[in-house]
Amino acid sequence: MGAPTSAERAIEGLRGRFGDALTTSESDRAIHGRDEGSWPTHLPDAVVYPSSTEEVAEAVQICAEHRVPIVAFGAGTSLEGHVIATRGGISIDLSRMNAILEINVDDLDARVQAGVHRMALNEQLGRMGLFFSVDPGADATLGGMAATGAAGTTTVRYGSMRDNVLALRVVLADGTVIDTGTRARKSAAGYDLTRLFIGSEGTLGIITELTVRVYGIPEHIAAAVCSFPTVGDAVATAIEAVQLGIPVARCELLDAVGMRAVNEHAGMDEAEAPTLFLEFHGTEGSVSEDARAVGAIAGAHDGSAFRWATTQEERSRLWSARHNAWFAGLAMRPGCRSLATDAAVPVSRLAECIDQTQADMNALPFPALVIGHVADGNFHVQLLIDGENDGEMAVARAFTARLSARAHAMGGTCTGEHGIGFGKREALVAEAGPAVEVMRALKRALDPEGLLNPDKIFLA
Amino acid sequence: MGAPTSAERAIEGLRGRFGDALTTSESDRAIHGRDEGSWPTHLPDAVVYPSSTEEVAEAVQICAEHRVPIVAFGAGTSLEGHVIATRGGISIDLSRMNAILEINVDDLDARVQAGVHRMALNEQLGRMGLFFSVDPGADATLGGMAATGAAGTTTVRYGSMRDNVLALRVVLADGTVIDTGTRARKSAAGYDLTRLFIGSEGTLGIITELTVRVYGIPEHIAAAVCSFPTVGDAVATAIEAVQLGIPVARCELLDAVGMRAVNEHAGMDEAEAPTLFLEFHGTEGSVSEDARAVGAIAGAHDGSAFRWATTQEERSRLWSARHNAWFAGLAMRPGCRSLATDAAVPVSRLAECIDQTQADMNALPFPALVIGHVADGNFHVQLLIDGENDGEMAVARAFTARLSARAHAMGGTCTGEHGIGFGKREALVAEAGPAVEVMRALKRALDPEGLLNPDKIFLA
Repeated sequence: MGAPTSAERAIEGLRGRFGDALTTSESDRAIHGRDEGSWPTHLPDAVVYPSSTEEVAEAVQICAEHRVPIVAFGAGTSLEGHVIATRGGISIDLSRMNAILEINVDDLDARVQAGVHRMALNEQLGRMGLFFSVDPGADATLGGMAATGAAGTTTVRYGSMRDNVLALRVVLADGTVIDTGTRARKSAAGYDLTRLFIGSEGTLGIITELTVRVYGIPEHIAAAVCSFPTVGDAVATAIEAVQLGIPVARCELLDAVGMRAVNEHAGMDEAEAPTLFLEFHGTEGSVSEDARAVGAIAGAHDGSAFRWATTQEERSRLWSARHNAWFAGLAMRPGCRSLATDAAVPVSRLAECIDQTQADMNALPFPALVIGHVADGNFHVQLLIDGENDGEMAVARAFTARLSARAHAMGGTCTGEHGIGFGKREALVAEAGPAVEVMRALKRALDPEGLLNPDKIFLA
Repeated sequence: MGAPTSAERAIEGLRGRFGDALTTSESDRAIHGRDEGSWPTHLPDAVVYPSSTEEVAEAVQICAEHRVPIVAFGAGTSLEGHVIATRGGISIDLSRMNAILEINVDDLDARVQAGVHRMALNEQLGRMGLFFSVDPGADATLGGMAATGAAGTTTVRYGSMRDNVLALRVVLADGTVIDTGTRARKSAAGYDLTRLFIGSEGTLGIITELTVRVYGIPEHIAAAVCSFPTVGDAVATAIEAVQLGIPVARCELLDAVGMRAVNEHAGMDEAEAPTLFLEFHGTEGSVSEDARAVGAIAGAHDGSAFRWATTQEERSRLWSARHNAWFAGLAMRPGCRSLATDAAVPVSRLAECIDQTQADMNALPFPALVIGHVADGNFHVQLLIDGENDGEMAVARAFTARLSARAHAMGGTCTGEHGIGFGKREALVAEAGPAVEVMRALKRALDPEGLLNPDKIFLA
């Protein structure tokens, strides 16, 4: 038997400190070695479950002492391999840090531990007439959503995580704990560390606590679907609504294939045509005014009459159908894996970008559908591939690379909300050029040993 | 004669490259050695006027070669000594870079050089039915506004510079040029360099170009003033409006002293009582609905009836009166200098914070007034001091320090929008604690020689 490896020594140190809150079981490691994306699984050597910021700091210190990689883990719902332990090491699972610490109704903010799930927060806020707006579909943790810079269906109106986090508590690579901001709504106090850690994907520090903005539940909410002869008509409607400053709260596109999947999966009976899912928030007067204005635009683009969902139950049904489009897609091809693209372009180029992308989709040897946060210029193509078939995977990867290049050429980005992770590192280089060297310099400054989530964001 | 100093060698190099676009005249240097704040003047050794990003990069390279400090200069309207050349060196004045490069009506964005002034941009946008929302009062340059993380009267509705910049072009300390983002509205492509440079006050790089969001001019705009028996009533009205989600576009407080100053300076005849300046944007229907809702809240707090300004001329008059409150204050005490505080607190603590601050103001030996972006929890106390009287200056500094400490104790910040600059460096340490060391590490990573705007943000 040789000398213990550094991982073994770290595990020994962690076991001494964390006891049963450390596990090396194969099943636990397997859960922590992948996310919902399509990238290869890499198991960590162990998983630790801290219960407080102090415990995260202690775990990080022990790992740092032994120079062992550290991967923070929330709900594992990321899509670009953000949590895969490419070099083994320790997965720090934040699920025990699931306390909602404060809800300040008067200030419309809340302070939560990083392991709080979005839906759990909204359940508690809802009892007080409040909601947290960022909605990526999956029931992610708030810490994970901040780490990936998540956005979603309501971003057109309420913004992404960047817009809705006031401050973070972060454990740095050496175990130091910092607060990146205060509860003030506005600040110009030095560098914007809050926004630096949002979207840093666990490579600069581990987010353990967040202070987020929340909103009062609008007096009136109404949702509707509207189908169109072509994707171009649906996109044009969304964009004109935004250009006119109509404050739509959600504005989501599903193409005809997506609608067929949703009809089958959710037992709905909507037209199998390109469809916008819309939601309006406000007073009864403003909602009807906004809806009338969007209806007029839709009509000019040959949209159908709106089919309304006004009660809470009808709305929930509609939005779970939309949110389950991912699973509806998966159900179209039993046993398949799903790979999602994430391009975003200036809205003036969106119709053209989707158009060219659909031409590209038509040549694919497997099913694919378009799901779009179209009012933000962001859309996903869900590619339904046979995960065992290397040929299909290669075709899907090449399709994604073409789409990223198309977005860049149109002044856009390879990722609107999923992040870089393991999967988009080459696309980032193509997109950001010398700015990637600035990111690397920041990484070296805050994590000189390169222990925090290695191999993510940057190519080696 | 001794050997030339490094500054002299840099000036020689710059003169060779820039000819007449370099000046060492006393008057030019004096203009570039101070801002509108109250901090001591420090002259740069020379001022250079580049005309392009490439020229900025060349100037930076020459300065870097000779290890000479570099201070970027926009309009000089900052308030915390951001542009004072504490160690001499070269002031890089961006005023020749005043081109509006693109306005994309369909995408609601614009690309401008850093030296474009806010009002010039709005003039050109206005012809196309658009506007740029961030309004700090002063006619600052866009580059300067990004560098200080500016905000202002419309931030409650449209956000600050952080929310309205899509991408920056930046010259780094070694002359490298990077773009921090794309024209996509949403991005999760690596670290958020855009937000890192916003508010970095010229200490990490020189912003030479910005891509900003713009908005369609609302169909209907109406402004009103409403006076209250006490500051507390006015503040409560503002806060309740925000808590109810009423999308007020501006919501500004002036106290009784401020109203007296404005009446005298602008020839107005408003009540000399705490007053809210309000603006509503939307359709005719939504504006009247929003105004009615705020009116009801104001009534419950003993507010007066709204006095409306509906035409463009009336509105301009009203808002220039508000924006000129600074000069109106100065006029109250001929020959005085003005020193402004900038605390921001959670809105639930704002009334209490202003109340305690007014008690503190009552003991001051010079006039002072309150100007507040109250719906954001941010307010300024304008202190009208005899700049030649060291005693008054010391009293003003001590008052500001007490207010910063009060804001910290209430979960707020020492600066909502003016930035740290030279003046708030101690307050930043008190506020951010170990996070300041993270900021320092970022500074060292991007400017290892410490040439970019030395002595700002950080204490030596």
